[in-house]
Amino acid sequence: MSIRVVIVGGGFAGLNAAKSLRRADVEITIVDRRNFHLFQPLLYQVAMAALNPSDIAYPIRSIFRGQENVKAVLLGDVTDVDLDRKAIVVDGKDSVHYDVLVLATGATHSYFGKDEWEEVAPGLKTVEDALAIRARVLRAFEQAELNPADAAKQMTFVVVGAGPTGVELAGALSEIAVHAMGKEFDRVDPAQARVVLVEGADRVLPPYVPSLSASAQRQLEELGVEVKADSLVEDMDADGVTLSDGSRIEAATVLWAAGVAASPIGRMVGQVDRAGRVLVNDDLSVPGRPEVFVVGDLAAVSGVPGVAPAAMQMGRHVGKMIASGERREFRYKDKGSLATIGRARAVADIRGIRFGGFFAWLAWLVIHIFYLIGFRNRFFVLAGWAWHYLTFRRGARIITGVPRK
Amino acid sequence: MSIRVVIVGGGFAGLNAAKSLRRADVEITIVDRRNFHLFQPLLYQVAMAALNPSDIAYPIRSIFRGQENVKAVLLGDVTDVDLDRKAIVVDGKDSVHYDVLVLATGATHSYFGKDEWEEVAPGLKTVEDALAIRARVLRAFEQAELNPADAAKQMTFVVVGAGPTGVELAGALSEIAVHAMGKEFDRVDPAQARVVLVEGADRVLPPYVPSLSASAQRQLEELGVEVKADSLVEDMDADGVTLSDGSRIEAATVLWAAGVAASPIGRMVGQVDRAGRVLVNDDLSVPGRPEVFVVGDLAAVSGVPGVAPAAMQMGRHVGKMIASGERREFRYKDKGSLATIGRARAVADIRGIRFGGFFAWLAWLVIHIFYLIGFRNRFFVLAGWAWHYLTFRRGARIITGVPRK
Repeated sequence: MSIRVVIVGGGFAGLNAAKSLRRADVEITIVDRRNFHLFQPLLYQVAMAALNPSDIAYPIRSIFRGQENVKAVLLGDVTDVDLDRKAIVVDGKDSVHYDVLVLATGATHSYFGKDEWEEVAPGLKTVEDALAIRARVLRAFEQAELNPADAAKQMTFVVVGAGPTGVELAGALSEIAVHAMGKEFDRVDPAQARVVLVEGADRVLPPYVPSLSASAQRQLEELGVEVKADSLVEDMDADGVTLSDGSRIEAATVLWAAGVAASPIGRMVGQVDRAGRVLVNDDLSVPGRPEVFVVGDLAAVSGVPGVAPAAMQMGRHVGKMIASGERREFRYKDKGSLATIGRARAVADIRGIRFGGFFAWLAWLVIHIFYLIGFRNRFFVLAGWAWHYLTFRRGARIITGVPRK
Repeated sequence: MSIRVVIVGGGFAGLNAAKSLRRADVEITIVDRRNFHLFQPLLYQVAMAALNPSDIAYPIRSIFRGQENVKAVLLGDVTDVDLDRKAIVVDGKDSVHYDVLVLATGATHSYFGKDEWEEVAPGLKTVEDALAIRARVLRAFEQAELNPADAAKQMTFVVVGAGPTGVELAGALSEIAVHAMGKEFDRVDPAQARVVLVEGADRVLPPYVPSLSASAQRQLEELGVEVKADSLVEDMDADGVTLSDGSRIEAATVLWAAGVAASPIGRMVGQVDRAGRVLVNDDLSVPGRPEVFVVGDLAAVSGVPGVAPAAMQMGRHVGKMIASGERREFRYKDKGSLATIGRARAVADIRGIRFGGFFAWLAWLVIHIFYLIGFRNRFFVLAGWAWHYLTFRRGARIITGVPRK
């Protein structure tokens, strides 16, 4: 009988683990709480009204349509892991047995113990987060128009955290204000909007080399973003944020792009670090449980950042090990970093070659299209970008869902 | 000073009223609770995972970007109308004064007093409704896969009401089951799904001539839809519906496409009929209030159906009257009816020329693309349709939002 491999999570890590098992004599079951794989690196563009959720989401079932050894794709929450019986429990009722378990449930944002801030400052991890942020941002301009006396606060946007996501959000917010809202408001001028990017470290994009951080900051400032480095958020409420230097920014919209908390499932299988990531062996297995692997953002591997390429590499590594039956140490290959700031603005560090501006942006664009799954998604994302690039407008400027108050 | 015209509602009626005032010496304010115009006739395609919300939605501001006399577009709920002071109240606090008021707030579905059915059987009026229906339908197949013992109930879909929307939904559900879900399920066969269309009248599409109703029913049956005419829903719960003949259909998903209830704002300005529509004069003004007009689905005008072309005509009629200062009786011009059933399947009645099948479907397609607002929306809808037509797949097969239980 072939080995039963259960993969929990259909993100970059889980997907690549399953794909690497394509020719192996195994029976794969994939479990995810969503029915689609989400291309997380472009999620901020959904939040910023440039793309649709379905442009960057692809049904997990369809991905494995042609892979015979994927025996089941199940939609559900893994509520328990029974390491001794070698079974996971889905939705509190259905047991699924495994010979090998691959956990790839990823991470979400962390508010560093200030969970009450989540109401004020939504983070960006799910499609629902993106649509809620989109609704908030668009609604802020509408509120300003409805009540111009309140416009200064309504048209001030604070982004907390200047990693790649924070930088992307801040740049896009600035572009929305200046271009997308254009001459369509009568009582207020959206171009007067203020975008403040707050970062605890001494510069934006702290993991990058200082010269690229400086380039990114320059490009952000050209777009009108105020960068506040060396600043921590001390407190926040519905009217704005207080920084560690005591200064106060009145803002109706605060977006959270800081902190990482791994999925709680990690605690069910082993020791975790402060961020909740599972401490794994060199081969990504759980100490004492050689049949359980942890990959992607849920795994704590020193020197490996929580980015999509690392998750893909971990997934492939475990897939190949299962297929071959041989254990090997995981080695991360850093292929470079790319962060986009706005139209024709980005920074790139590709194997030590560092550059910013238009060509970095073009590289970013090509790589993201390349890694998107499916012809349809590629086509619609490219078409959406082309339209946006030519018209400066945003194609998904609609407020939907019930935004949090 | 120019006349202040306040238009409440940015649907087909309100939009056309404002556009007809393009060259008039007026100051227009448009108030809507949403920031976009929604192309309602294609909303079922969002529910059926073929289109994105933003493909059929367009920001109201952008529509009037170039129309100088539109002085304000306000996002808010009209909570009160003060006919004597000639003012509306937005969001319970901001008063907006008018010289002429045009009410175009439309209608929603009615459960004929059985409001508790709404939880079980969502209707299709808003983007959120469409996404909730999409999530339910897709989730039903996932539940069947997760628990094949429950598959018969999970893969039975009941559509209540066989007007154009009900017919479109039933046809699309059948196509989803047979084509879109394809060979992607391992434990159940989606092609075994059962779609039941329940109608109280003696045939589908009751407002159409009997020969077209027969054609529509034939086309539905070719798709595998079970049509139950002369049947009323007696009761329903989370497990299914009971019909008036006492028969029971076990079904996890029930969709509501029956009944119309006009927006409650109508009651603030005049006498209403049983459906809550305002009884208006021949010129669409409210009796005793010559400066207040009601247009679209909110107006009760005998012989005028609640369809998009009628709403557009009413809006244009009132716009032209305000521009010219002359009162004229509204006369509805019936340009025909079109209902689509599925791929290459539709029925058409255009000035007495009646036909079904491929050419009716082509006419439906061309007319809907023509009336969509904006190059971008036309392009993306056409591209989405082309992809769907060629691949039989559905591009927006993602479960998002928190579906009602």
